[in-house]
This record gives sequence, C-alpha cells and structure tokens, in this order.
Amino acid sequence: MLHGANQKRNVLLIIADDAGFETEVYNNSAVHTPNLLSLAKRSLVFNNAFTSVSSCSPSRSSILTGLPQHQNGMYGLHQGVHHFNSFDEVQSLPLLLNKANIHTGIIGKKHVGPASVYPFDFAYTEENNSVLQVGRNITRIKLLVRKGTRKQRPKSQQAIFSVRGFSRHAQMWALAPQYGAFCEKFGNGEKGMGGSLTGPSKIHTRSSQGIGLVLEELREAGYDNDTLIIYSSDNGIPFPNGRTNLYRSGTAEPMLVSSPEHRERWGETSAAYVSLLDITPTVLDWFSVPYPSYSLPSSPSAPVHLTGRSLLPALVKEPSTWNTVFASQSLHEVTMFYPMRSVHQGAYHLLHNHHYRMPFPLTKTSTSKNLASDAAYSPVLQSLRQLLLKWQWATGDPWVCGPDHVLEEKLEPHCRPLYNGL
Amino acid sequence: MLHGANQKRNVLLIIADDAGFETEVYNNSAVHTPNLLSLAKRSLVFNNAFTSVSSCSPSRSSILTGLPQHQNGMYGLHQGVHHFNSFDEVQSLPLLLNKANIHTGIIGKKHVGPASVYPFDFAYTEENNSVLQVGRNITRIKLLVRKGTRKQRPKSQQAIFSVRGFSRHAQMWALAPQYGAFCEKFGNGEKGMGGSLTGPSKIHTRSSQGIGLVLEELREAGYDNDTLIIYSSDNGIPFPNGRTNLYRSGTAEPMLVSSPEHRERWGETSAAYVSLLDITPTVLDWFSVPYPSYSLPSSPSAPVHLTGRSLLPALVKEPSTWNTVFASQSLHEVTMFYPMRSVHQGAYHLLHNHHYRMPFPLTKTSTSKNLASDAAYSPVLQSLRQLLLKWQWATGDPWVCGPDHVLEEKLEPHCRPLYNGL
Ligand SMILES: [Ca+2]
Ligand SMILES: [Ca+2]
Ligand SMILES: [Mg+2]
Ligand SMILES: [Mg+2]
Repeated sequence: MLHGANQKRNVLLIIADDAGFETEVYNNSAVHTPNLLSLAKRSLVFNNAFTSVSSCSPSRSSILTGLPQHQNGMYGLHQGVHHFNSFDEVQSLPLLLNKANIHTGIIGKKHVGPASVYPFDFAYTEENNSVLQVGRNITRIKLLVRKGTRKQRPKSQQAIFSVRGFSRHAQMWALAPQYGAFCEKFGNGEKGMGGSLTGPSKIHTRSSQGIGLVLEELREAGYDNDTLIIYSSDNGIPFPNGRTNLYRSGTAEPMLVSSPEHRERWGETSAAYVSLLDITPTVLDWFSVPYPSYSLPSSPSAPVHLTGRSLLPALVKEPSTWNTVFASQSLHEVTMFYPMRSVHQGAYHLLHNHHYRMPFPLTKTSTSKNLASDAAYSPVLQSLRQLLLKWQWATGDPWVCGPDHVLEEKLEPHCRPLYNGL
Repeated sequence: MLHGANQKRNVLLIIADDAGFETEVYNNSAVHTPNLLSLAKRSLVFNNAFTSVSSCSPSRSSILTGLPQHQNGMYGLHQGVHHFNSFDEVQSLPLLLNKANIHTGIIGKKHVGPASVYPFDFAYTEENNSVLQVGRNITRIKLLVRKGTRKQRPKSQQAIFSVRGFSRHAQMWALAPQYGAFCEKFGNGEKGMGGSLTGPSKIHTRSSQGIGLVLEELREAGYDNDTLIIYSSDNGIPFPNGRTNLYRSGTAEPMLVSSPEHRERWGETSAAYVSLLDITPTVLDWFSVPYPSYSLPSSPSAPVHLTGRSLLPALVKEPSTWNTVFASQSLHEVTMFYPMRSVHQGAYHLLHNHHYRMPFPLTKTSTSKNLASDAAYSPVLQSLRQLLLKWQWATGDPWVCGPDHVLEEKLEPHCRPLYNGL
C-alpha cells in the first residue's frame, strides 16, 4: 500500500504574499517576528532560495504545479483583464493529492485558475470571500483552519490544528496570507506602503503573529510530529528591483522547511540553491505520491517532467551539488510584456531577455556589472546559455526561439526564422 | 411577440480564412470565382470593409461578439500555447441567439473559446474533427450543412439548405472554410503558399466552388427569401504587410451582404466604412434581438455597448456619415506582443503603437508617408487621437494608458504613472 505508511502525515504550506527577508530569521533585527524565529529553530533555513518567477499568479501556479509559468500556461496575472490561466490538462499538486485521497485546503489569496486545475476541498479565498478577511485577518484565518479541519470529515477522522482527534487522512493546507491588495501594481499608494519601515514592519509583525496562532493550534493539538511545514513567499518585494524582474533582488525568497521526521539539521542554514519549483516535488515525496507521465496538448513534444527536486534529502545532509536554479517570466499585467529567462549557477547569473534583443546580462552574484562582453567570461556565458536553452526545450518554452525566430512544432520542434518582412 | 415576425428568417455567415480580394467581385480577373460573383449580384458589395484585428482568433472573437479583442479578452490566438480566451461573462452572438431560441451551427474553423461563451447547437470544427475535413473538403461541408439542418429538429421543423420542409425556427449558420493550417504562422512553407498566384488562385477557385455548392442547396430548397448572407474574411492575407498589422493592407476585407428583403441595391457597391464589428449588430438587427445591458467584471467601469452598427440600412440607401472604423490588436502568438490601436476616418489613418513609444504614424489613404510630425496635419492628428482614446475608454481597453502609465480602476478608471524605477 503506497500511501498506507503516510496516512498520518500532513503538510502546511505558508506563502506570505510579497514577503522578503524582513525577519530576524534572516538577521533583520528591525522587525520583530518571534514566531517565525521559533519555527526557524525547528527548520532548515535556506539562504539561497529563489522563486521561478517574480509575479503573483505565475509564481503561485509554479508553486502549485512544479512547472514554470511558460509550461503551465499562467503567463501573467490571473485576475481581471489579465486573465491568464494554466492549461486545462496540467496535473497540479492539489489535483494529484486529490486523486491520492489527500484532503486539501486553502485559506487566503489563490489567484490561479482554472478552477478545475486547482481544486481544493476547502477553500476560503478571494474567489468566495473578501481577501481582507481570509488573507489579512489573522484571527479569522485561525478560525477558518479550525472550521475547515472539523467540517470536512466525520468526528473520528478529525484532523490537525484544531481538534485532538486522530487524523485518518493526510491533508495539505495552503495558507496564503497577504499584506494588502498588492498583487497587481508595483505599489498601491496605501499608507504604510512607502519607503519607511514603519508600515511593512507592522505587517511582518502581524504576519508572524498569524503564523504563531496557527502553529500554536498545531502544537496544542499534538500534530508537531505529523506535519511538514514549508514557509516561503511568492515573489520579490513590491519595490523597485523587486517584483517583476529576475535579478537576485526580485527572486530571492525566504524558505524554511520544518519536518518533525528530519530533526538532524533543525536550526541550521543551508547554502544549497533551491527553488519554489521544488515545493511540489517535496510535498509529493513527503506523501509518496508519484508524478504522472503525460504531455500537454499545448506542447506535445515536451513530455512533462518536474525539473525541481524534493528538498527532504537536504534536511538530513547538506547537498553538495545543488548549485543551479532556473527562472522564467513572461508577463505580469497583460500589458507588461517582459519575457526573460534566467539561470543562476554558483557565483554566476545569466539573464536572457527574449524581447528586446538586449545583450545577455551575465553577472557575478556579488556585483551588477555585465560580464557578457568580457572575453574572459565567454566560456561561462556559453555554458550557462546552453544550460538555459536545454531547460527551455525540456520544459516546452514557447519563447525559446524569440525574438527573431518562431517555434515550429511540425515534425519535430525547432526554431524557424520570422520572414514576415515587417 | 418580439421574435414572432422573424421566425422564418435565417442567416448564413461565411468567413473565408485569410481571404483578400482575390476575386472578380473586386475586379481581380486573374482568379475565377463565378459563384462569389453571382452572390455579389444579389448583394451590396462594400469597398471599405475592415477587420478590427488582423489575427485569426481575435478576429473571430470580435466577429462573434461585436466587441474588439481588448474588450472580449481574446488578446491573441486561442489554440495551443497561446491559450487566449474571451472572458467568461461575454454575451456573444451565438449565446444571445441561443437565448432567443434561434438555432445555431458552425462548420469549419472555430478557434475561439471558452466553449461556454461560444455555444453552437451544431458544430463541426477543429474541436471535434480534422479541420481539413470540416474546413477544406467542400463536398463534406455541403453534406454537413445538410446533416445539421436535418438532425437538430423534428421533421416538421426541418430547415434551410437541404430540405424542402418549412423552418419553424430561425437559424444562424457560420461557415468558416479555410485555406490550410494557416492560422498560426505568417506562412507555413506548404506548396502553393509562395509568391506565385497558382496555389492561391486554386484555393480561391475551390472556395468559390464550395460557396456555390452551399448556395445552390439554399436556392433549390427555396430559402432565397429567408436568408441574410454575409461573406467576409477574418484577417489580412498571410503575406508581408497582411496579417498581424493594422495597415490598410492588413485590415481591408471583402464584404458582401445579401438580403432577400432588401433588393434596392443588389449588385451595387458601397463606399461606406464598415467593420467586422458590425456583423453582430447586423445579425441581431435582422433577428430583432436586443443587446443586453451588462458590464464585464474585468472592466467594471466600462458598461458593454456595441460600437459597431447594423449594416441593414446601407442595403437601402448609401449612408452619408459612415466614415470611421476602429481597430485594435494586442498579440498574435503569445510571443508576438505588438499592441496597436488605429482609427481610420475618411482619408486619414492613425496608427498608435502602444509598446514601442513610436511616433504615431498618421497617413493619408493614398500614401504611406508619416504625416504625424507635419505641423499642417496637427489638427487632424489631435482630432483622431482624441477619437481613438475615446473609443478605447468606451471599450475598456486595458492598454489605454500604455506604455508609460498603468490603468488604475480604483474609484474611477484613470492612468497612473509607472513608478517602478526599473
Ligand atoms: Ca505577490
Ligand atoms: Ca485567419
Ligand atoms: Mg484552457
Ligand atoms: Mg476566464
């Protein structure tokens, strides 16, 4: 019985909207976040965690599918006129858990679609509620967790967080607290969203308090030993050089992974390069749910494979070879077309701009100087460029040939020149 | 009874894929299209008809909704990785006809979605068939028309084209023959798609033959007096300066409107400026179906009004004031982001490029010289620019503020500067 051994395992995934390193966990002493700090003491803290895309819906889609935005179809924001959606045929994490009879819940900002690709058994999101209530009111979030875990099953199967009963079924809960109506614009002009620390620090304090309330429930209910907790954010902070770019400042994320079954490195930090694309493989690994074999009709020649990895091995031993992460951004709002792809390997970061024919910015982590035209770095540039292209082909990237060529799927996929004469 | 008087009326809409003026109807003597010519003798032929967008799915969506692509949500191609869809809440022509109990059918290329927005009672399209069979095999098209009209109703209600019975219910049929697998690329390298006339002329000849077969059925069944026939194309021809641009060469379309109830101008030509956005209002007018009052959640502050008009009055008397058409293009393939808006008024054509900050090309119909920086044309430029902006606001265009500002819906819609510091 594949899932038999894991019936008592649960997952809590906390994605703080637009959050960065404003916490003592990452040595920011200006912001008081004791609950996050206390979680960190039972976690491995990743110092090189990155989102695969610095935009709200695309990032949430990549977290929940393990596929970059260019592969899952969520090329930009989901809401309003932007109207991006993942492909109908994507096998998302909630869908796979659902098929494995694992109960799923989401509270807070969802911002992905279509509904059929992202089904949750219990959902309090902007789709059916005021996002202020389900995403910002921390007391309400706590009560929703309680309500959801009680409501969805008979008493004998009551579950984590709120009740002392025994969970017969595994569960995954996604908590997506947010700072404000912040998904769509660089800044929304609201009080406390300016340059001063006062507003944001209040928000991070509240966020930490909310996390505290939920974790306290978990502890009191005795589920410390059942639940894998992952804490991260969706995209860069909503400030210049943050969200909507793939520089380090737009993609670096906090990442805490706390497993009650892997205490070897509790309180330690890891220098391994990890990605939000690793979350789906990690959760599937935790539940021993295999990833299915399929292709998307939109990219029939690129069979879907997860290019991220399970993080569980890192919880036992520092990985020596995890030094590469990829990122991919196409749009944010539908009017903001900035297709970029990047690979970050060790000290080097290559950013490829697919629209403006800009020279490839190649930088060392420590500086912002473009080394792309420096002959001494030519081998590095070539190697990273090949690595990036290989990933783009493997993940069926429609932009792989742009801007000067178009992807042609006939016979086998290849790039063809754009002889349009315009 | 609103629809009582029109129960016997039918509509046949023929959209030839990527077609241009390769017909004797428009004085091209190199291509033999006798059936189209014969239809023209019972039609008003428009010499200034334009698509609102020069791309396949966006154009088909604007034909079937009466709304420009930026308003209905089909910003680019529907199929494959492009994955654009109209907004779920759009009240399309087939939907409105459906609500008015008018039977609808489509044979050939559909290329729009989602299915719920574009419901047809009878559909043989690429969604359920080889598009070669339903879009190119003219004998099969004829048989499908016969099958569809017989199958969908009891014998006493049998309908146009194929059976001599009496149609109790009005119907609209959309025939969408196509030349080939041509929607996606500028050219597909197939034989006959090069610069020589041989291939295309064969295609136009076949297309005319197909139209002939269908019209012959119509005539033989005695439905000449029931059926409004509209013949046009979806976008510019798939050659340089054709499809995917909003120059005259990319947007001018053939347009024949044949009404058995309006014979006053049969065989005449009209110089009125008309648009494919006029097709939905024309069909609604023909069936006396009113357009509903609603807003789209994606653009709550722009109540949806059709900005096209019914063409029926022109069938009686040449309009003296129809001298303005608008066009709007955002993407074609998802990788091809060229947002443009245009207004064509009398002798002048203003093309506004929303992405590259290019000067507005302002041209006279007869030349391609950019007059935008010529002071003598400054009043024309200002006037057209205001006209275009007014239309963009009226149709909830998300690009109206681009590229330097973003549309902000808070309180009332307005443009805000993009202070992103990037
Ligand atoms: Ca966000
Ligand atoms: Ca076409
Ligand atoms: Mg879809
Ligand atoms: Mg939708």
